Order: sequence, then structure tokens, then C-alpha cells
Amino acid sequence: MSEREIIGEISRRFQKTTSRSRHLVCGIGDDCAVFRQQAGSDWLISTDMLVENIHFDLSFHPPYKLGRKIVAVNLSDIAAMGGLPEFMLISVSLPKYIGRSWLADLLAGIDDMSAGFGCQLIGGDTVGGGELSFSVTVIGKTDGITPIYRYGAKAGDRVYITGSLGQSGAGLEILRGGLQADDPELAEKLIEAHLNPEPQIKTGRMLAERALATAMQDVSDGITTDLAHICSASKVGAVIYEHLLPGREQLERICAGTNFSALDLMIAAGEDYQLVFTSPSRRLAENTAEITRIGEVVCGSGVRLVRLNGTEEDIAWRGFEH
Amino acid sequence: MSEREIIGEISRRFQKTTSRSRHLVCGIGDDCAVFRQQAGSDWLISTDMLVENIHFDLSFHPPYKLGRKIVAVNLSDIAAMGGLPEFMLISVSLPKYIGRSWLADLLAGIDDMSAGFGCQLIGGDTVGGGELSFSVTVIGKTDGITPIYRYGAKAGDRVYITGSLGQSGAGLEILRGGLQADDPELAEKLIEAHLNPEPQIKTGRMLAERALATAMQDVSDGITTDLAHICSASKVGAVIYEHLLPGREQLERICAGTNFSALDLMIAAGEDYQLVFTSPSRRLAENTAEITRIGEVVCGSGVRLVRLNGTEEDIAWRGFEH
Repeated sequence: MSEREIIGEISRRFQKTTSRSRHLVCGIGDDCAVFRQQAGSDWLISTDMLVENIHFDLSFHPPYKLGRKIVAVNLSDIAAMGGLPEFMLISVSLPKYIGRSWLADLLAGIDDMSAGFGCQLIGGDTVGGGELSFSVTVIGKTDGITPIYRYGAKAGDRVYITGSLGQSGAGLEILRGGLQADDPELAEKLIEAHLNPEPQIKTGRMLAERALATAMQDVSDGITTDLAHICSASKVGAVIYEHLLPGREQLERICAGTNFSALDLMIAAGEDYQLVFTSPSRRLAENTAEITRIGEVVCGSGVRLVRLNGTEEDIAWRGFEH
Repeated sequence: MSEREIIGEISRRFQKTTSRSRHLVCGIGDDCAVFRQQAGSDWLISTDMLVENIHFDLSFHPPYKLGRKIVAVNLSDIAAMGGLPEFMLISVSLPKYIGRSWLADLLAGIDDMSAGFGCQLIGGDTVGGGELSFSVTVIGKTDGITPIYRYGAKAGDRVYITGSLGQSGAGLEILRGGLQADDPELAEKLIEAHLNPEPQIKTGRMLAERALATAMQDVSDGITTDLAHICSASKVGAVIYEHLLPGREQLERICAGTNFSALDLMIAAGEDYQLVFTSPSRRLAENTAEITRIGEVVCGSGVRLVRLNGTEEDIAWRGFEH
């Protein structure tokens, strides 16, 4: 079964469940669940499981950066709702080959990333398993703003993205030896995008505070899948344009003469931990260097990509499935 | 490194962290962390990781009961604070050998156990890993009561336990073929105690509502370890008496002529998911059939066991480490 099939099975089963908390604002199906004691200030909660050789490769992922990353991918879910991180719980299954100094470096990375965003470790669990894996749960607060859900996109909105796409995917392929960058500084930047992504808390918060985004999601599985989530939840379609994808020319240069496709890295490799969002605003990208318009929301369903040569294809749900 | 060494390393590292949330009531070091929006009603949160062949054995754990159990062990942490379960998040790493019908049975067990306590699934993650493992996070509410922490035990308090001790451990050894019960009904009961434990939400809540317990903890690692947590947090010692341990005679009968020790099953096998608590009340056990006095809180430190023959030994921290 694929991840989507399993989640579908779980959602079907638990939507029938009669128990429904009066404290719940939003359950399964967004970047975070949302609950509250009383109206006005909500709690956001999200959890991720990260398993060796699926989500990370110890042969090139140093423990300090891995510690940063397992926190960052969760903070990214809080960013995608416009929240502020507050608490986290981390469980770890540690095989015998993990030593004391490796663990100390991992903890230093966890500590630095979480403290940088004011997020405090309040619990967790440790197990001596056969496979290295982590489960991270982050709790954020909305602190007066309305969270940005996946379901608010409207036909006519523009589709925006923060930062560049495909850098993490390209960095991974450089680490694996499949790709080479033309200069060492660029190689370093792409590798860093993969090993040490930065959650977009500040931009997510700015968008929520100014109520600029109608729907938002972080780019973890590639925008083919992440934008498809927004379209599915909002009951709309989206059109994006290859020529507008930020970072395209750089990746095309690196991929030239290899079997790798710059386009696939940009739309399907995932792990960019940028934010993809929709907004009726026409001038967002003009005012903020870090935001690029990549398309628009349309009636219908699915995610269509307009290629450089003008042909169109539906690319929904083609992202990486963990 | 043992689980305690790892947790020690983590606690040392994160106690130095400067970020400390104004919403936090209690962080690492109890059954649950406690946080709040404003005083009067707190949220409890706890997380557990459960890994195949460490926490459960698929050769005798049917998926429906496994689903119940992975929820129950987390609800037990909410019970140990006197809280009411409200939400949960479940992440699962599913190897390829897990099929659709097995997963459906697991989900049915998760659903039944959580719905039975009014606890709603609001999130999670799925991964196709090499090893079957679960990470469950449960959020409870205090709903007006003060949670029962580990740190309130006072010299002179009595030590009480709910239910019986060692049943889960004996049930596991019956499943493994090492022990045999004298009658099939008893065997069934012990096996059920292992495969399908019942979280003591009702008793924990009653104790919190009536402010009867000064400290409480659930019995997951065996009372040698679980009572040691209470003593360490409360800066007291405890003395418990072998002749008072509930269920002893039955287990001695089953263990007679085998290499198994009824005492070890009772104090160190763990996974009973009963509650051990301290209380100044003298008459708790007289009023409630399901509560037994097993000892008292004393000045000093450690957990001493008075054997049937009158000899004493320190048994602190001898429980099962996962």
C-alpha cells in the first residue's frame, strides 16, 4: 500500500468515529491539527516520523545537521499554518551502532534549531530499536491570528512560492554522486539546502498576520503533491508555469548532459521546506524578493503544468511518497 | 547506552536551554508534560514509541489487540496524572510484509480503545520502514483538577497500587511457552493482561478529583523503576512488603517448579499499566476492592523491599529498560 492509500484507509475509518471533541478546530488533513481551550488563541500540533535510509542517509548526513533537520521539517508544518512554535516532543529509536558522541552532536543540532525558534523540548521517548528512527511532535500557537488552512484557495488567486525549488533534491543527487555543480560554492549551497533546511516560520507568520494567503502548505513532497493537497482541499485546480519556477536556469545548467531532469527536481523531489500558497494579492512577489509567483488558481481540479514549449500536462500527486 | 543514560544526557542538555515558555507548567520528567493557555485548565501531553520485537511480538500479538495496546499505554500516562484523554496522533512505520487486512484490524483496535475513552485521532504520519514501529502522542485535559505529579510523596504516606502486579509479565511468559497456568481461564486472564491492558483512567481521575494522591505514576517498567521515579522526584524513599503485593499467591503457584520468579514478575517485568501512588489516607484500600496498600513512604531515598523472611534489599531501578 502507498502512503496515500494508508492515510485514506485511516481517514475513512476515523471519520466515522462518533467521538468529536468540542475543543477541536481542525483534525486530520492539514499541515497541523488545531485545538483550543477557548476561542481566540489556538494550539497547532503536527507530527512526523523520520526513518534512516528513507528520510536520511547517515553516510553523508552529519548528526548535528540531522538534529537540526528533524526539528526543521516539523517547524515547517507550523510555518505552513502561520503559527509560532512553542513545544516539541522527540522520540528516538537508537540502534546499538549509535555512539555517545554522535548522539551528543545530534542533540546539539536539535537544541540549536529549536532554541532558534523559541521552541522548548518537553517530552519524548527512547527505544533501543534495530533501525534508527525519530518521531517529532511540535506544538505551536496561533497567538491571535487565524491559521492558514489548505482549503481557502479561490479561482483567480495567484500561486506563490517562497525561495527556490529543487535545491534540496539537487543537493541530494550531488551527495549521491549523480550530479555535479559547476562551482564549489553552488554545490555547497545545494547540499546545505538538503542537509540543513530552514523552516519558513517568519514568512508564514508574516502572511498570517497580514491575512495575505488564502491557503498554504509546506513543500515537503514536491509541489506536484503539495499544491495538489491545496487544490483538493479547496476544490479548485491550479496552473503553474515552468518558466516561472524559481531556480530553474541554475538547475538546468547542472542537469545538462546528465540523466537528471531539472523539472523533476523542482516539482517532484520535495524536501525544499519552502511554502507554497495562494493569494488574491497581485503584488506580493514585487514587494518581497523571497516570494515568486508561479501560477494561478482556476476552477476545476488537478495541477496543470505549462511547459516551456507551451504544452500542458496534469502533474498532480507525482511527488515523492515516503 | 541505556535508556536512562540517554534520557539523562537529553535532560542535562535541554535544562540548560534558555528558552522557557510562559505556557509551560511541567516539562520533561513526569508521565506527561503540562501546558496551558491560562490557569485553571491545563493540557497534558505524552508520547511513546513502540517497536516490533522490543515492545510486542507479532507471532502472538493479534493486530486488533495491538491497536488497542498502543493506545492504552499512552492513555495510561494520562491516567497517571488524573487527566481525561482528548486527542491523539499516531505515526506508523509499516514494512512491506504488513497487509491490508492486518492494518484494518489494527485500526479497528486503535479506534475502539480510543473511542472508549472519548479520545479523537487528529493527526499522524505513515512511513514505509524496514521495521514495524509506532509513535503515539496523546493529549489529555485536566478539566479543573490539579494534575497528580510524581514529586508530591511525603514520608508517612502509604504506597498503594491498583489491580494486580505481574500479570502482564506472566502472560508474556505463557505466550512464550516458558510458563503454564494451572487452569485455562487463568491462563487466558494473564495473557489478556499482556495483550490487552486496560488504562486506569477512571481510578486516576477519581484520585485526582478527590485530591487523594500526593504522587502517582503508571506501572510500565515495573514498580522497582516506577516507584523509584516517585521517590527520586519527591526526594523520599519507600518500603514495600512482598507479602502485601497483590496477586502474589497465584503467581507463586504458576512459577513453582520453573526458573521464573513470581517476585521478579511482580516488581520488575512491567507492562501492568496499573497505577502506583502515594496517599496520606489510611483507608483507601478498605473502601476500594481494586486498590491495595503495598508499603509506605519514608525519609531518605531508594525503594526497599521487605521479603517474606524479613530480609530487606534495595530494588530501585531494577525494572525493564526498553
